[in-house]
Amino acid sequence: MSIKQQWITYIHSLQDNICAALEAEDGKATFVEDVWVRPEGGGGKTRVIANGNVFEKGGVNTSAVEGVVTDAMRNQLKLPAELIGKELSWFACGLSLVLHPINPFVPTVHCNYRMFELYNQEGEVIDRWFGGGTDLTPYYLIDEDAIHFHKTYKDVCDQFDTTFYPTFKKLCDDYFVNYHRNNERRGIGGIFYDYQRASETKNVDFWINFGQACGNAFNKAYIPIVAKRKDIPYTSAHKHWQEIRRGRYTEFNLVHDRGTLFGLRTNGRIESILMSLPPTVRFEYNYQPVAGSEEDKLLQACLHPRDFV
Amino acid sequence: MSIKQQWITYIHSLQDNICAALEAEDGKATFVEDVWVRPEGGGGKTRVIANGNVFEKGGVNTSAVEGVVTDAMRNQLKLPAELIGKELSWFACGLSLVLHPINPFVPTVHCNYRMFELYNQEGEVIDRWFGGGTDLTPYYLIDEDAIHFHKTYKDVCDQFDTTFYPTFKKLCDDYFVNYHRNNERRGIGGIFYDYQRASETKNVDFWINFGQACGNAFNKAYIPIVAKRKDIPYTSAHKHWQEIRRGRYTEFNLVHDRGTLFGLRTNGRIESILMSLPPTVRFEYNYQPVAGSEEDKLLQACLHPRDFV
Repeated sequence: MSIKQQWITYIHSLQDNICAALEAEDGKATFVEDVWVRPEGGGGKTRVIANGNVFEKGGVNTSAVEGVVTDAMRNQLKLPAELIGKELSWFACGLSLVLHPINPFVPTVHCNYRMFELYNQEGEVIDRWFGGGTDLTPYYLIDEDAIHFHKTYKDVCDQFDTTFYPTFKKLCDDYFVNYHRNNERRGIGGIFYDYQRASETKNVDFWINFGQACGNAFNKAYIPIVAKRKDIPYTSAHKHWQEIRRGRYTEFNLVHDRGTLFGLRTNGRIESILMSLPPTVRFEYNYQPVAGSEEDKLLQACLHPRDFV
Repeated sequence: MSIKQQWITYIHSLQDNICAALEAEDGKATFVEDVWVRPEGGGGKTRVIANGNVFEKGGVNTSAVEGVVTDAMRNQLKLPAELIGKELSWFACGLSLVLHPINPFVPTVHCNYRMFELYNQEGEVIDRWFGGGTDLTPYYLIDEDAIHFHKTYKDVCDQFDTTFYPTFKKLCDDYFVNYHRNNERRGIGGIFYDYQRASETKNVDFWINFGQACGNAFNKAYIPIVAKRKDIPYTSAHKHWQEIRRGRYTEFNLVHDRGTLFGLRTNGRIESILMSLPPTVRFEYNYQPVAGSEEDKLLQACLHPRDFV
């Protein structure tokens, strides 16, 4: 099986496994699938869930798309000079998920694992890289959950390279940032990596195995947190705070997220891209939590990323 | 009085007049003022209203800010070649308002009137231009209101130049566009103009008078619509649709609006800039109104701008 086919097969099995685990945890809602075709090449399977016992809105999407390299992509990809003027084509395949739970004590989660290939006119692979990550956006900071989440990915990373977790944890803290809000982070991070290519010490199999190990760790990292917190009683004040924070999530995704903006500028499937936006959101003028409150504790963790493991 | 001082004085009196009219129409909430100072020069008066009888959230802001021209501004302003490398300074003063009513039958409204001056090292004015506009975002299309709103601004425009209304109406339709949503407009438009400079036939006084006439027309254009519609009974289904459309408003402001993005990138006062975002918002996957419904009628008016006068 080609590397491309191997990755596609994995991504689809990951989609199935994650959807099954989420449906089991929700106990009411099931995923609805929209299969779509991209006019310029390839397509995807968008699976959305809504109004469940646990999940208010979410999606677990896969896509496998391809096309010719356009000028807009050349700029985005920062291609080396020797490739300028050549007719190239590309392929990308990945899984992307976002889950917005009802209960403010259950965190929102996002993950994305993807592979990108670049081809010359003869259709030969001339470049290939991997990227991905999983990050957590709680509304209330429960240390035990933050530690469990980070430790799960640290354990995966450590099996491959002990420099990975500290490196990819910092990349994550530095990526999901609302720069326009005093560098407030979207949440409490996780791991994030991009542009990882095969090298002498880390071949293609290494990166495929690493991506798969991270993808496979999702259920273990997230589902136990959902199970523990989904029945905590909450008030309208907790829900209000969740919707204020969802406002920050919306700001990050629409103003800063590279993937979202790339999709919006390149005629991506809008409904699949914007599936990530929260179901209900509040924007209030100059909202500030009370100093020392549980809300403020979460805000401080977003302003000052810290180590959980 | 200098032109600069004349414009500042007008903008502040406009802020007072509009706030007074809106408070009278609301009958409950009053504006709260935050005066702020910009470290790099100048400042503003942000006035916000919330949880009134009529207005769920809104702001009527003025600012008068100044500074040295930075490289980022040179790009944005597209300065002529002979000014490259010169030490220049700038001044900008304007009023910007957004009102989000509670009742889905009362439209959201936005307006902005501003003047910009550019100075050489000796402090002499080397360029000056005017911009502005007012646009309406209804949730249900009531032809009578749309006609009243557009006719008010057409009447103002016609007093100055009969080519203005058709030109500025089209500029407005072409500006408030969610390009990522099949060119769906944010609302049903109004007028929009920018980079208007004194010429042989239209001197500075002409443009000041035109901006003032447009600004002064706001109360006449908007308040009668509020008065007529604020007590129409509405259901949770109407409110739901309003919140879906507020999602599109959020998308436009965060993804496309030049003023918002410029403010976010140049260390503007975040809370004053994002005052424009709606109080409660919904994002649902692939939401489509029923064909032929009142909701669909509004959507079609946003997809296919038409003439109301």
